[in-house]
Amino acid sequence: MKRVDLNSDLGESFGAWRMGDDEAMLALVSSANVACGFHAGDPAGILQTLCAAQKRNVAIGAHVSYPDLAGFGRRNMDIASADLTADVIYQIGALQGLATAAGCRVSYVKPHGALYNTIAHHQQQAQAVIAAIKALGGHLALMVLANSPLEALARQAGIRVLREAFADRAYTPEGTLVSRREPGAVLHDPEQVAARMVQLVTTGTLTAIDGSTLTLTAESICIHGDSPDAVAIASAVHQALTRAGVSLTAAAG
Amino acid sequence: MKRVDLNSDLGESFGAWRMGDDEAMLALVSSANVACGFHAGDPAGILQTLCAAQKRNVAIGAHVSYPDLAGFGRRNMDIASADLTADVIYQIGALQGLATAAGCRVSYVKPHGALYNTIAHHQQQAQAVIAAIKALGGHLALMVLANSPLEALARQAGIRVLREAFADRAYTPEGTLVSRREPGAVLHDPEQVAARMVQLVTTGTLTAIDGSTLTLTAESICIHGDSPDAVAIASAVHQALTRAGVSLTAAAG
Amino acid sequence: MKRVDLNSDLGESFGAWRMGDDEAMLALVSSANVACGFHAGDPAGILQTLCAAQKRNVAIGAHVSYPDLAGFGRRNMDIASADLTADVIYQIGALQGLATAAGCRVSYVKPHGALYNTIAHHQQQAQAVIAAIKALGGHLALMVLANSPLEALARQAGIRVLREAFADRAYTPEGTLVSRREPGAVLHDPEQVAARMVQLVTTGTLTAIDGSTLTLTAESICIHGDSPDAVAIASAVHQALTRAGVSLTAAAG
Amino acid sequence: MKRVDLNSDLGESFGAWRMGDDEAMLALVSSANVACGFHAGDPAGILQTLCAAQKRNVAIGAHVSYPDLAGFGRRNMDIASADLTADVIYQIGALQGLATAAGCRVSYVKPHGALYNTIAHHQQQAQAVIAAIKALGGHLALMVLANSPLEALARQAGIRVLREAFADRAYTPEGTLVSRREPGAVLHDPEQVAARMVQLVTTGTLTAIDGSTLTLTAESICIHGDSPDAVAIASAVHQALTRAGVSLTAAAG
Repeated sequence: MKRVDLNSDLGESFGAWRMGDDEAMLALVSSANVACGFHAGDPAGILQTLCAAQKRNVAIGAHVSYPDLAGFGRRNMDIASADLTADVIYQIGALQGLATAAGCRVSYVKPHGALYNTIAHHQQQAQAVIAAIKALGGHLALMVLANSPLEALARQAGIRVLREAFADRAYTPEGTLVSRREPGAVLHDPEQVAARMVQLVTTGTLTAIDGSTLTLTAESICIHGDSPDAVAIASAVHQALTRAGVSLTAAAG
Repeated sequence: MKRVDLNSDLGESFGAWRMGDDEAMLALVSSANVACGFHAGDPAGILQTLCAAQKRNVAIGAHVSYPDLAGFGRRNMDIASADLTADVIYQIGALQGLATAAGCRVSYVKPHGALYNTIAHHQQQAQAVIAAIKALGGHLALMVLANSPLEALARQAGIRVLREAFADRAYTPEGTLVSRREPGAVLHDPEQVAARMVQLVTTGTLTAIDGSTLTLTAESICIHGDSPDAVAIASAVHQALTRAGVSLTAAAG
Repeated sequence: MKRVDLNSDLGESFGAWRMGDDEAMLALVSSANVACGFHAGDPAGILQTLCAAQKRNVAIGAHVSYPDLAGFGRRNMDIASADLTADVIYQIGALQGLATAAGCRVSYVKPHGALYNTIAHHQQQAQAVIAAIKALGGHLALMVLANSPLEALARQAGIRVLREAFADRAYTPEGTLVSRREPGAVLHDPEQVAARMVQLVTTGTLTAIDGSTLTLTAESICIHGDSPDAVAIASAVHQALTRAGVSLTAAAG
Repeated sequence: MKRVDLNSDLGESFGAWRMGDDEAMLALVSSANVACGFHAGDPAGILQTLCAAQKRNVAIGAHVSYPDLAGFGRRNMDIASADLTADVIYQIGALQGLATAAGCRVSYVKPHGALYNTIAHHQQQAQAVIAAIKALGGHLALMVLANSPLEALARQAGIRVLREAFADRAYTPEGTLVSRREPGAVLHDPEQVAARMVQLVTTGTLTAIDGSTLTLTAESICIHGDSPDAVAIASAVHQALTRAGVSLTAAAG
């Protein structure tokens, strides 16, 4: 039986500001990338999301970020390795504390936003994140962009890697994401997105933006949690995969 | 053989700003109350302090605070219980993460500044801090002002309590601290401070500001780390206690 | 011809987080209390709101707050007078800068949230806010809760006062707000709210929660901008007042 | 009679943390680059520095920065133009407010740290800063690195430019700063620094790191305010220039 993980970014409200519908998404995904306070998430809100995830047995990932609330972690930052490593440890630790309080535990790390994009190719910052995970004992997996150089780097360091594909993104024939600046980069039709993900999981292939077929291996599928059609897309993907006989199971354990 | 713990507030630098002389203090104290980022301390600086503490086998306490960098955690804040509990868990967890990276562990919690003063008597906020400690498994001790109502509250909750006296503060005949607004509230002479602490540890008594003798039980002595004469006072207390045959040992273990 | 000011809290989005519908509210109010970055509002978002307000010729107030993004300025803070005065000047100045860039100007100050409630009766903090306004030249008016002691305090200091009533709040027979903890404190029916405001403006009276009639003088009516029914209530009040022949004009000028 | 401006970065304390000796430096410089809260400076501390500057008739510059307290504004940030422009306006406005309260006014803008270095050559971010200054009316001068492309860019926009040289930095034969990573980049001997500045002001030349002589025009000389030997260097430069008959006068007015 085929299996795949569905992951989404949750816990991204902050103080009086709401973002996304955590309750609805938690009913559909198997893994939650939970904000750790550096790009989003205040402790009480994070704890609430963790408690809801625990009830649904959803796996928890630390969605670590550059320290940039005003920019939602979406701005590149030229940060020293020692600072980045300590920032990531701090965030994972904080989430581990809250997870303990919620009766669950953090099983993987997924960098957020600009940090995610940067470490996919920037070796120095990638090593700083890897050092943080190693410093915490190495039992945490790292979720990475499938086909990115980060995958090999993390494996060399002895870290378990979870490769992810993006449900609502177009791919180049080389298996990389089409830049958001290009037309057609983001897919909005829930049925199309769902059909693509069924193809990916059942055949290990995906149709690239030029119509060619590419091979892609991914243990997890990311569904954005804060777009207007997030729940609709997540719901469509969840249903289509279930209908295709795919088991939705957390990739990290 | 008599024993007592010497504790001090450390890790209170922030970014480009220095505060205190952590290296010097770590050579003199047995417990370090380490800032957790809410009133002071950035992750990289905290990690550095934790590594230095680990080398000297100094016990680590989480110096948790209201979220108030600009006010250094010294301003009372009317914070909801759920928020305070989650804020405290977040801070302890963050410090636990960094402590793991430094090869040591957090063994107690000491609230900082306004939070410390408030929970000594404010039952609702005290219960919120107690709930945070319980939520993390209850193995953490809580350092409290000796003779404060918080002591009984924490014990009732099943939390191990470490009572502390303040080396450089005058006491009322009732065993409470003389308010900083009163003349003579803060003692500056290292030799006088040291002699008082030897009396406290060896006889369980202290001379109050009116000349009377009061009984005080404290497992730990707090020495401020950020005053100009911090190292001089810590050094005098350390020497005098050692000379008096007192063993300086962490209260939490 | 009767006239009154309608004011609402705007510019309260922050970074990636949205709050309220500024465009819709700006079409209905005559004064905008614009966040200054301490409880809400990032510079680019504030500037956008100011530009939209300028286009509609809506008056601008500085919605100053305690420094508390995580708590949205709703938590009391025991802040020293010198700090509060400087914090308020800083916020007004920042908004004045952005207003200059938007081609408009700040004409009044309205404290937000916990600061608003506190200075209605807490004389020391009230004087700190008054000192800030005086330090900026005294041309700025201060919007205050009608019937609060702050009104006299501000007048004594030579500051122009704008008294405001709350459209969606019940009043005690004494003319103070019914506490939000009491049943019936907040009114949700747009038509009822609108009818009350027409009564207030045309007769200078309001029906208290016990059915008695109280006298209330207010130059401005506050309509909350971030509740789900904010636009509906604002729209109903706007229409009812216009229908009653009341001119909606900014109180500060 | 020759004249030059001496400028230094001041107001960089934050909350409980001290940095530099503002009082001592204000006795020696003619212009103060005052922190605006984004990399350093809290409102009350900034106000104190402005009051001290006002008493000594020292000119005030807005020392604007990326929003990065933890990194002291020293980390490059990939910030959108609209955000950067609004952030700079916000900071200048805030400082103008506090300057009004202190009885003085802001006469120029000097970007800080990473922002300073970036806009010396990064055209998009430079234009964002220029747009901020223009939006405030254009009466503010911009202090720029002498010999940087920013100078022409600002002049084209109709902004008055103040070129500055760095007292304690070595220069390449091309008139650019020797990178801090190179040996000899930072000069520490007060007498040597002072002699170089006398040469610069009286002859318009400076000895480059390779011994060659370069031509450099600068209306202002920057003396770092937060290094351990800041006051000693400022004092030596001040004395040597005065002895050489140079008038120390603010460049902006």
